[in-house]
Amino acid sequence: MTRRAPTLEDVAREAGVSRATVSRVVNGIRNVDPAIQEAVRDAIERTGYAPNRAARALVTRRAETIALVVSGARDDSEGEQDAFASRVLADPFFGRVVSGVIRFLRPRSMYPVLMFAGTDTARQEVVAYLRQGRADGALIFSTHAEDPLPVLLASEDLPCVLFARPATPVPVTYVDLAHRDGARLAAEHLLARGCRRVATITGPLDLPAAQDRLAGFRETMERHGHPYVPVAEGGFTVESGAAAMNRLLSEHPAIDGVFAANDLMAQGVCQVLHERGRRVPQDVAVVGFDDSGVAVSCRPPLTTVRQPMEEMAATMARLLQEEIEGARDEPTAVIFDPELVVRGSA
Amino acid sequence: MTRRAPTLEDVAREAGVSRATVSRVVNGIRNVDPAIQEAVRDAIERTGYAPNRAARALVTRRAETIALVVSGARDDSEGEQDAFASRVLADPFFGRVVSGVIRFLRPRSMYPVLMFAGTDTARQEVVAYLRQGRADGALIFSTHAEDPLPVLLASEDLPCVLFARPATPVPVTYVDLAHRDGARLAAEHLLARGCRRVATITGPLDLPAAQDRLAGFRETMERHGHPYVPVAEGGFTVESGAAAMNRLLSEHPAIDGVFAANDLMAQGVCQVLHERGRRVPQDVAVVGFDDSGVAVSCRPPLTTVRQPMEEMAATMARLLQEEIEGARDEPTAVIFDPELVVRGSA
Repeated sequence: MTRRAPTLEDVAREAGVSRATVSRVVNGIRNVDPAIQEAVRDAIERTGYAPNRAARALVTRRAETIALVVSGARDDSEGEQDAFASRVLADPFFGRVVSGVIRFLRPRSMYPVLMFAGTDTARQEVVAYLRQGRADGALIFSTHAEDPLPVLLASEDLPCVLFARPATPVPVTYVDLAHRDGARLAAEHLLARGCRRVATITGPLDLPAAQDRLAGFRETMERHGHPYVPVAEGGFTVESGAAAMNRLLSEHPAIDGVFAANDLMAQGVCQVLHERGRRVPQDVAVVGFDDSGVAVSCRPPLTTVRQPMEEMAATMARLLQEEIEGARDEPTAVIFDPELVVRGSA
Repeated sequence: MTRRAPTLEDVAREAGVSRATVSRVVNGIRNVDPAIQEAVRDAIERTGYAPNRAARALVTRRAETIALVVSGARDDSEGEQDAFASRVLADPFFGRVVSGVIRFLRPRSMYPVLMFAGTDTARQEVVAYLRQGRADGALIFSTHAEDPLPVLLASEDLPCVLFARPATPVPVTYVDLAHRDGARLAAEHLLARGCRRVATITGPLDLPAAQDRLAGFRETMERHGHPYVPVAEGGFTVESGAAAMNRLLSEHPAIDGVFAANDLMAQGVCQVLHERGRRVPQDVAVVGFDDSGVAVSCRPPLTTVRQPMEEMAATMARLLQEEIEGARDEPTAVIFDPELVVRGSA
């Protein structure tokens, strides 16, 4: 079916040199006369020859591919595995991460391999995939604090970089955000607009990021003389944000400000307030977190704490590349600063 | 830095056989005594040896990887290229496609390589990537009717499967939806609820899918005695849907029903109606298309035409696999049936 692809022999014939010479040029081996290298490159150009990647990989020992792994769901059923992937893919967070990664890889003609490791079996496959040299390293995004994947990879010395500090120390490089500072910006903004009965909806509290955002928010409220902050735990989804807001309103009907630990939950908060006839921001001011696409399409548009996801993901790819090239032999960390983006909701 | 990985020699020593025998077992070559095969497999187990993938690929001539390519933006600037990727990744459509693809690949321990080809350079890289055998084939999702990528791949006989019928005939396998039938379901539902002044917001009319949805909608309205249907063209985004609805309302204030050609635009329509104090569905009924995550999180939840994206994407992966294995040498097409999902908006 497929038309015969040009071979090393075709190039050799075209260039009038030996097969071995062509192969030395293709594999970037030195000590080849520049004029001959030139001739071979021209011949490659004319014949449209594409060196077989598998063959090159044997020489370079590089797949020139990295894995983008989303890991962390607890359970082990295939069905749940699909649900896990769909859940992650539905979160705008994911799109920003991928576009940051490809922004770094594209100029290098590299592309990410997408892997979802929601089960132990799937995590073992990720390890095997790297061990077999199908990818040179992995970018890990965990949705669950006790994700065992980082430990597995670290114990095998397989190059990887994590998004967010792991819940328990692992000797692995990671990129993270100064979550406490972000929460502080949210608290200061709500107080500055005159909110006095402020509550917060957190993410899953087994996640360090969710803990840090809660701590930073409480800390700032306390420092400004508001030691008591009603708290409801959510699950980083629109539905969980709406449910948490209903719980808060039934116990604290006089709430005049809410800090939701991500934009999806803030969207749920706005929907509940709207359904209950409370105006945003006049009656209740709402601040989100992330500055994802939701923040703009939400009604009103969300005032939120921006997490530079694309830049963070691109930095992860750069750090991984350095690790693959052996440029660093100790884990490191890069922490980004959040930024308050003021829109209609507060 | 990396701990020495177990080699073929280690396995041979462990199994007490020759290096050649181990390699024959690893590459699944027959005529090896079953007992010896057993011994080698145990040794592989004990040593934790992972056959080098590049080496295997040289034998199997398969990368055992497929490319998931999003292609089609017109322009050629790097900045626009990033914008293109971000735009696509922000669309919930994308997440459903990826989860359908991985649902088919995971049981086969295969993973998709993600490629964005928004420029001619990027498209050439996709062709080279396949030519070099870094992926065995490609699943193509075009966002633009005149996308040249399918033609490029077809002319090189590289295995690929398209999402949606190409605007101009190309000898390539594709998967699509019966868009006219979907639009018919929307029209019949609006008429059944008593809507009589119905308008429609289309997708970009250079896309066959957008043309078919418009044609199917008009056809049905006409057959029911409503030859005149106000039309506004949108761009499949929330913002474009809102803008189109504002245009329609200023020219046709009495509209009592709207069919938006995707859910994101339907969300924009609901926002505009809400801002203008029109109740959905009492004053204006709204029907979307896709049944994406937006349909559920929208207020009110959207009545929409379901496109079984996951199943369609999984089918694309299966058809591509068959093509890679040479099971079919003529292009084929699989057309899925849409389904009306009734929620709050109509």
